[in-house]
Amino acid sequence: MNDADPLKIGIAGLGTVGASTLRYLVDENARIAARSGRGLMVTAIVARDRAKDRGVDTSGMRWFDDPVAMAKDDGIDIYIELIGGADGVAKASVEAALSAGKPVITANKALLAHHGAALAKLAEDTPGASLHFEAAVAGGIPAVKALREGLAGNGVTRVSGILNGTCNYILTEMEETGAAFGDVLLDAQKLGYAETDPTADVGGFDAAHKLAIMAAIAFGRQIDFAGVEIEGIEAVSAEDIVAAADMGYRIRLIGMAERTTKGVSQRMRPCLTPTDSPLGAIEGVTNAVMLEGDAIGATVLTGPGAGGGPTASAVLADIVDVARGNTPPTFGIACADLSPAGDGVDTGDEGAFYLRVTLDDRPGTLAEIAAALGEEGVSIHRMRQHDHVGNAAPVTIVTHACELTAITKAKERIAALPASVAPPVSMRIVES
Amino acid sequence: MNDADPLKIGIAGLGTVGASTLRYLVDENARIAARSGRGLMVTAIVARDRAKDRGVDTSGMRWFDDPVAMAKDDGIDIYIELIGGADGVAKASVEAALSAGKPVITANKALLAHHGAALAKLAEDTPGASLHFEAAVAGGIPAVKALREGLAGNGVTRVSGILNGTCNYILTEMEETGAAFGDVLLDAQKLGYAETDPTADVGGFDAAHKLAIMAAIAFGRQIDFAGVEIEGIEAVSAEDIVAAADMGYRIRLIGMAERTTKGVSQRMRPCLTPTDSPLGAIEGVTNAVMLEGDAIGATVLTGPGAGGGPTASAVLADIVDVARGNTPPTFGIACADLSPAGDGVDTGDEGAFYLRVTLDDRPGTLAEIAAALGEEGVSIHRMRQHDHVGNAAPVTIVTHACELTAITKAKERIAALPASVAPPVSMRIVES
Repeated sequence: MNDADPLKIGIAGLGTVGASTLRYLVDENARIAARSGRGLMVTAIVARDRAKDRGVDTSGMRWFDDPVAMAKDDGIDIYIELIGGADGVAKASVEAALSAGKPVITANKALLAHHGAALAKLAEDTPGASLHFEAAVAGGIPAVKALREGLAGNGVTRVSGILNGTCNYILTEMEETGAAFGDVLLDAQKLGYAETDPTADVGGFDAAHKLAIMAAIAFGRQIDFAGVEIEGIEAVSAEDIVAAADMGYRIRLIGMAERTTKGVSQRMRPCLTPTDSPLGAIEGVTNAVMLEGDAIGATVLTGPGAGGGPTASAVLADIVDVARGNTPPTFGIACADLSPAGDGVDTGDEGAFYLRVTLDDRPGTLAEIAAALGEEGVSIHRMRQHDHVGNAAPVTIVTHACELTAITKAKERIAALPASVAPPVSMRIVES
Repeated sequence: MNDADPLKIGIAGLGTVGASTLRYLVDENARIAARSGRGLMVTAIVARDRAKDRGVDTSGMRWFDDPVAMAKDDGIDIYIELIGGADGVAKASVEAALSAGKPVITANKALLAHHGAALAKLAEDTPGASLHFEAAVAGGIPAVKALREGLAGNGVTRVSGILNGTCNYILTEMEETGAAFGDVLLDAQKLGYAETDPTADVGGFDAAHKLAIMAAIAFGRQIDFAGVEIEGIEAVSAEDIVAAADMGYRIRLIGMAERTTKGVSQRMRPCLTPTDSPLGAIEGVTNAVMLEGDAIGATVLTGPGAGGGPTASAVLADIVDVARGNTPPTFGIACADLSPAGDGVDTGDEGAFYLRVTLDDRPGTLAEIAAALGEEGVSIHRMRQHDHVGNAAPVTIVTHACELTAITKAKERIAALPASVAPPVSMRIVES
């Protein structure tokens, strides 16, 4: 492409994000072109429904039925993939565009999580090709740019965040209303905050895709979605939320990738975190990303993690980057320099834990719990016995730092006690 | 410069930031070179004291006495200016490097605030030259990159922030200890958090430099430091902090640049903001930047606004950008596209205000205040009379939205009342 000509853009997928992106590119064309340093025009589009009114005149654009055909077509310089899905036509069209030497912009976190390594290699090996995905992580928050470029000089030590607005909305609602997970999920589905099949969100998978992407950039490591330990929020109970609040904590689905002395860990799971901590303070559908490095210390970015406008904002940022020629390697360094995914995975886990145990209300049971913990080397930091519920007495415990394996064994011991009337529940505590 | 050769870096100024930048470039060279996609080496340095131990071996580097000579020297490809000061040798050396067609990286907010327009033009007009200044705003927080690139697709509506750690430290300490401004300032000076001459910080000038830089990028407008209305924190009293806290507010030095129907406003001044608002929640030396735009809504970035490591992190990010060829226009768009600074300046100010009035304790005085406000069209939202201090009764008022001019006139009326025993104090309220 000649820098003097307008950049010809093809958009595949005109859902909420695609339609919003298209509208900005048409309605605010001059403004975005000024930021890009060259003309921009949408020349081609793919969408299932051609008749739908998207609030923009598409008459001058070419409609394609097949994203792959559009991706390869000489009439587009940049291919924007907003179809979604880890495989199928999204993957085929991204591969086609990269193979044709075109920059690709995508919001597709599943595609990157599953096929990011191969796509990064294809982008690197094909002159003219590059892969951009600001919109795939934390919606409008420029988290990828902040990490890959803003913290480029840092040895990153930890990346953590609240990366799924649906989960955070549900946890916030549970906290505010006292309602159970299932009831809040139903309401969220009615309000359009949760999908009919909520598994990708509440199961932690969508957020885990994003964490894997951030971890690859942060640690200069092959993307390793299979290496993310994932636990969703389905089992978070109203009781745990109350018990946590009672001690100044909130329960949040926290994604955390860390470089430890043992390797790199990647975890997505509900955790307790202080109400006034950077992640504990995040309410509703807001997302947050905390980046920690040797030079910077820590920086926290918060903002809208989804929605047409915010996600379009991220897609537009990538378009401006492409127009300006800012096309760094997919994961920040050359593919050959990325360390292998399986190398030095830290499967251990050490820290303070929250533990909730439900006991028969009779003398001596607290001593039995304390003994079970002590025998596994788990030291108690705080312990509270709560009001009886029927004949059962819930006890909540905050431990000192210990290994997860010790907690798991202690839970087994406690579950085997005659006084135990429900399986013990545990969650990691993240102090900041 | 040939992309296959290592990039030769010259650093002028080896204070805290310069020495930290130098250490990272030497000690973490391989890591930063991988991020840069090419080799990097510091080949030349300027510092007053050559004997000082900076924890790094400088024996292979050329020492210059004159930053201008180093800036022009063929032995460096990038010039890093960490000398400081709006004029003098900092300016002369930056001009020399740009004129020689070199990328310049600087942390010098005063230089940019005063001479940014001319320097941007020089960078644009000279092939090879470019001007980078991530370190000039909010220390380690990648605020310039987030605004200029991350929000490039947005019509920015407002940029606000806490941009001076010294002021935020002092206000936080005043709040926590109840001490007066002067006493806290003395302590801050002893601890090294405030300079011997604290004017640049507590007078709001340093933060205003940063705000002017952000406003130029946000609104695609010539940098206009003279157009920033500046008020420092010297007059913030312990009484105001208590009265604000009483109503759920904190006092923060807030910089805010907004596009209004009347034009662009730029203000740096102490404001009341809710304790749990994005800026009200910021404590101590932390900085925060809130970016609002039509597509994204709002995103907030927080982190360390000063210090050797964090500021070096920003300098290193600029180095990686230069090495990768990411050299966008200084203020995000071509100089010719920047709107003139004097054009459409909004000097009005509308919003809710906090007002503190100190009255003689006798009947009828509250009615006199209410009447004075009513006559100027200022409507009262909340009003509290506090415990008497001697014979004086402080009254705090939160108004509904009104023009600053109405507040000013109402204050004049109140000051002229026989019952008024001290000049009324007013501050803008920023709800979010």
